[in-house]
Amino acid sequence: MKTDLECVPCIIKQTINTLKISGCSNKLSKKVVSELLQKLENIDYDLSPAANSDIGYIVFREVTGIKDPYYDLKRKYNRLALDIYPKLEKVVDSVKNKLYMAAKVAIAGNVIDFGIDIKKVNTLDFNKIIQDLQNTPLAVDNYDKFRESLKDSINILYITDNAGEIVFDKVFIKELVKLDKKVVLSVKSNPIINDATLEDAIEAKFDSLARVIETGNSNIGINISDSSDAFLEEFKKADLIISKGQGNFETLDKTGANIFFLLMAKCEKIARELGVKHSDIVFAESKARTGKSNAVSKNQ
Amino acid sequence: MKTDLECVPCIIKQTINTLKISGCSNKLSKKVVSELLQKLENIDYDLSPAANSDIGYIVFREVTGIKDPYYDLKRKYNRLALDIYPKLEKVVDSVKNKLYMAAKVAIAGNVIDFGIDIKKVNTLDFNKIIQDLQNTPLAVDNYDKFRESLKDSINILYITDNAGEIVFDKVFIKELVKLDKKVVLSVKSNPIINDATLEDAIEAKFDSLARVIETGNSNIGINISDSSDAFLEEFKKADLIISKGQGNFETLDKTGANIFFLLMAKCEKIARELGVKHSDIVFAESKARTGKSNAVSKNQ
Repeated sequence: MKTDLECVPCIIKQTINTLKISGCSNKLSKKVVSELLQKLENIDYDLSPAANSDIGYIVFREVTGIKDPYYDLKRKYNRLALDIYPKLEKVVDSVKNKLYMAAKVAIAGNVIDFGIDIKKVNTLDFNKIIQDLQNTPLAVDNYDKFRESLKDSINILYITDNAGEIVFDKVFIKELVKLDKKVVLSVKSNPIINDATLEDAIEAKFDSLARVIETGNSNIGINISDSSDAFLEEFKKADLIISKGQGNFETLDKTGANIFFLLMAKCEKIARELGVKHSDIVFAESKARTGKSNAVSKNQ
Repeated sequence: MKTDLECVPCIIKQTINTLKISGCSNKLSKKVVSELLQKLENIDYDLSPAANSDIGYIVFREVTGIKDPYYDLKRKYNRLALDIYPKLEKVVDSVKNKLYMAAKVAIAGNVIDFGIDIKKVNTLDFNKIIQDLQNTPLAVDNYDKFRESLKDSINILYITDNAGEIVFDKVFIKELVKLDKKVVLSVKSNPIINDATLEDAIEAKFDSLARVIETGNSNIGINISDSSDAFLEEFKKADLIISKGQGNFETLDKTGANIFFLLMAKCEKIARELGVKHSDIVFAESKARTGKSNAVSKNQ
């Protein structure tokens, strides 16, 4: 996906949010914004919004020297999600189509990241999550195609999005494992926003449920040309890829791999790309699917 | 009011909205945004958000050569508002405290500017406007103080905001004239966003109701140092000033003049400054009021 004009103010806004969370002084914050504006003057609109958003976080790190401003928040997200994890499992166990409900739980994990006030939240409202799960239909629902593709799949690459959210993913992955699928979970090698890293996967206690690998970078989404060989190997090997959240959709929507995207459309641009409305949730197969293997190269 | 970091993406967003409305090509739009980013690198945070937003429109005009991208929309706003004007008058006539209701109608004029989709609107939903008037209490209501101040006031300067909205203002001004007040209406000398100009005042048929003067510039809000002597004379002469909308609040909140601000808080920054929530509506007296005359100088 390419970057639109409307992504420019959003990139700046994301960086300002990070500055607020990090508690940087006003003076330092202004310096970060000024340097970011300078960098964005020559923004490459052919890159994905995710890739251009990386610029904001790179400038933030360079100017402030702060490597992981979301560290404490990620710990909190995981703890809150783990608190309600048994309840999430029960919801899945209470229905007939467990895999479908588990997928919806995973999408709910992406939704709550959006809905909560990250500075104030101290509890996750389980009842509201369940209510939303029941009341919000999927604007794109390719579950049947997913189920079909799953029949021929053994190796599944599960590309995670946020800390906290990965506990919700665990519910879905558990169901996949019950179906004898081999799930590999990918997390970021280094911190970027509140994206899940190895520490988060450990906190979420994936244990033997899924092998955890790192992407080899700290990009928003998946930057193929900057990914580790180990990650790319799993990407190619996977019969089926599950991709969570916007950043991964922005960077993987044109790869032609067998990907299913689970996310909430958190901006107009993504909603347009998916043909849905702002705030809609989707379980969407890749439109760029070529039918071939997940061949990727670093020059792609 | 000074500019905050969070105003920076908003300034860019406003310019992008103007680019969309003007129908500029993608290439030209990118050029505008790039030049704006360059200008904003050295943004003066001590200036008001309105003054810094001016930069976006200046760059837009310089790069595109388009002087009044909102021209057609302003005509449409006026026509739609004039269509329901008799109904607005009836609402005021139907209540006991006509002046208070008329003030609320004027505030509603500021609200509808925000609520409508400027590209799609073809009618104004009168019933919804009235429902909102009844259901939305003023988050700050200094009407009693206004009423008190009005007793000692003859000359009123009414600083307008948007085209269309000025038809709603007319309902309020009519009630003030009934109380034998002399109302002078100020509009912009040249186009800026959808702000009212002389052409709009003529379309709104103010006729003998109020004398119309121009600010001498095309700034968002009121830039004292850039205003005409004629405007400043009326500003000083006024016993009481009524100021509509955010831009005027941003630029006049520290002047110490006897001003009442009627507006909807359309962003978090303004809401904070007013001590209210986003989307709240207010009828607020100036906190900077010194009790002296409305003395201003161009060096202020």
